[in-house]
Amino acid sequence: MKKDCLVCTGCHKEYPLDKIFPRCDNCQEPLEIKISLSQRFNKNRKISSESILEHYAAFYPFPWIDNQLSLQEGFTPLVKVDKLARLLEIDNLYLKNETVNPTWSFKDRGTYVGVQHALSSGCNYIGTLSSGNMAASVAAYGARAGLKTIILVSANMPLEKLNPILIYQPILIRVQGDYGQMYYESLKIGQEQGIYFLNSDVPFRVEGSKSIAFEICEQLDYSVPDYVLIPTSSGGNARGILKGFLEFFEGGLIKKLPKIVCIQLAGCAPIYEAWIRNKDRITPIQEPQAIDNAIANPFPPSGNELLRKLRKYEGLITTVTDNEALQGQLMLAQEGIFAQPAAAVSVIALQKLKKEGIISKKSYCVALVTGAGIKYTGILERHKFNVSTGTLPELNKIIRTRLKELPLY
Amino acid sequence: MKKDCLVCTGCHKEYPLDKIFPRCDNCQEPLEIKISLSQRFNKNRKISSESILEHYAAFYPFPWIDNQLSLQEGFTPLVKVDKLARLLEIDNLYLKNETVNPTWSFKDRGTYVGVQHALSSGCNYIGTLSSGNMAASVAAYGARAGLKTIILVSANMPLEKLNPILIYQPILIRVQGDYGQMYYESLKIGQEQGIYFLNSDVPFRVEGSKSIAFEICEQLDYSVPDYVLIPTSSGGNARGILKGFLEFFEGGLIKKLPKIVCIQLAGCAPIYEAWIRNKDRITPIQEPQAIDNAIANPFPPSGNELLRKLRKYEGLITTVTDNEALQGQLMLAQEGIFAQPAAAVSVIALQKLKKEGIISKKSYCVALVTGAGIKYTGILERHKFNVSTGTLPELNKIIRTRLKELPLY
Repeated sequence: MKKDCLVCTGCHKEYPLDKIFPRCDNCQEPLEIKISLSQRFNKNRKISSESILEHYAAFYPFPWIDNQLSLQEGFTPLVKVDKLARLLEIDNLYLKNETVNPTWSFKDRGTYVGVQHALSSGCNYIGTLSSGNMAASVAAYGARAGLKTIILVSANMPLEKLNPILIYQPILIRVQGDYGQMYYESLKIGQEQGIYFLNSDVPFRVEGSKSIAFEICEQLDYSVPDYVLIPTSSGGNARGILKGFLEFFEGGLIKKLPKIVCIQLAGCAPIYEAWIRNKDRITPIQEPQAIDNAIANPFPPSGNELLRKLRKYEGLITTVTDNEALQGQLMLAQEGIFAQPAAAVSVIALQKLKKEGIISKKSYCVALVTGAGIKYTGILERHKFNVSTGTLPELNKIIRTRLKELPLY
Repeated sequence: MKKDCLVCTGCHKEYPLDKIFPRCDNCQEPLEIKISLSQRFNKNRKISSESILEHYAAFYPFPWIDNQLSLQEGFTPLVKVDKLARLLEIDNLYLKNETVNPTWSFKDRGTYVGVQHALSSGCNYIGTLSSGNMAASVAAYGARAGLKTIILVSANMPLEKLNPILIYQPILIRVQGDYGQMYYESLKIGQEQGIYFLNSDVPFRVEGSKSIAFEICEQLDYSVPDYVLIPTSSGGNARGILKGFLEFFEGGLIKKLPKIVCIQLAGCAPIYEAWIRNKDRITPIQEPQAIDNAIANPFPPSGNELLRKLRKYEGLITTVTDNEALQGQLMLAQEGIFAQPAAAVSVIALQKLKKEGIISKKSYCVALVTGAGIKYTGILERHKFNVSTGTLPELNKIIRTRLKELPLY
């Protein structure tokens, strides 16, 4: 028997490594792998425990940084997705997977920076106004920092969506009234009661988002993608990502800027509406109709600024429908990434822009996957999934039949 | 005005960095941070894009490794939790946060290794029998690898829990019958139809788990914790983690072994029951009563082997109740980590063993947080959370009242 082998944990009988049946043929106990350590392991090539603020310290010159608070937000995978690239007929496609952040969305980057600014400003309380991802993120980091945390949500938000925020035990208030007005009211109350409201447009939250751009550059070895596709709601994340590319460009680390492509849902696209009408200012959407609140801010606080920046740096903005977002969710899942519908719009936008000839086949594209699908499982009922049911004696036949089904792509 | 400042994105008016109100006092547009790049950024100190199989290649001498499949599973944060440590009266406490894996549980490590072994063995199909986390993980990696994937679940699993598995579009079958028998039936059908069933005890899945031990050592700079606390269901993960420490020990990378502490839920604790009765073999639990299926395998395939290993290496095993698991969930959330109840048992066990004098105050402890709480939001209704509701004009007063509430800890 060669050195590397399978060995029974019970009777120690040995088997070759290519045995598939996982138990011992002799005593039925589980097997384990016995390996001979031939290569030397390099102890010095250590995995990093830095926070984004440490790693990119040159671009975060803030004296008040406390890395003890970090939950190791950021440093998310840039996943090459060749199967999806073939489907969309794009030569090079990567997904920046923000669903593996500590509260499973990109919001943690900005919250991490913002909470520290709040602490440095002597605030004992933090807060946010949010429809989901930002609420969970602020509640989590507020708890970790030992700060009392005020979370304001719209009164029509279903109670079941509140529990994953309440688990961090913030002070959660469901507010009856106009969402746009709520934003200004939160700032007023914040000033009066000393609460730092970490909303989407807070400059230090936008600073957190710029690390997404830094990481993309670094993960692509300082080559720059042609297009970066960003699901866009309040506009703060797109602002931050563009700012990150600009700072790396000004710092001489990259040689060009990517084109930023913002994507909104057709049922709530205030920035897109202003863009196509050549307006300078956002008009609030009166009755937003969107499958996922995370991408449905009817009056985005960074909307005007994002319009200015998209025009200045020749960005693009487009929309996709609710059903297309669901389709995008299925496409991403075929690469093993389960995105919320809000986060799945970027691949659909890419598909459309490719078909329209705006993005060419040979482009290098990075699509941002902003948040996890596991957060919004109610939506999944809109997919028509096929489930079989049967008894143990029927199982063999059911499997045989279903294996003959045609593949997806 | 000093160089680093806030600047209005609209009218370019400048403000000091400690301004908290996030909009321009002049034109109400959002502010952004203007920084002068003084420090040089070191391009060579790059964040890693290695997979666990690349980074620990010395311990994974398999010729068939294909890192293209990686979703960058593993390399999860080891978070120092001083607030929780004070509460539990333990000097040094870390949480190994497996909730930020690609499908939000530790299962992805073993699935990643196992799928590659399946591919190398020429299997066109993979499968698993699971009550949740493993099903999602195998479905995700199966999709990414382009393999047809068979997921078997118990017929009493609610449909709403199936959608987060079905999103990856596996062949999902709800099976009526005994869960323990289902396991053996799956292996039989697998042999007959050429399906590689990646169940919990597959040796290559166990290999994936050993990277958890490697990472803990590396993240603690090759000092070794006194105790590693592991929520235990089928026993495969605990086997893998212990194997990892043993291999680092044999390879001369660490000087001692930690004590492994396995934790089961009181309502389904077959390994614990055999342990306290000094038995060599597991007896199946007839009517498991547990809050979270992820830690409730009534007949754990690696149970006998885990008993052998815990005895040989002087490990411990204990139980906690469902209500205690929910309490653990609240404790972890105060450090910003939202764990599923199955994953929250380790801190409760630590608290108990500390009170019983078995674990001393000066110990170095690592508690494993195996999977994300966001997966099981139905359970959260058992927490009694306080939610306020009010109109915009009432908001100021509601916040003022609730801020007077006493803190949690």
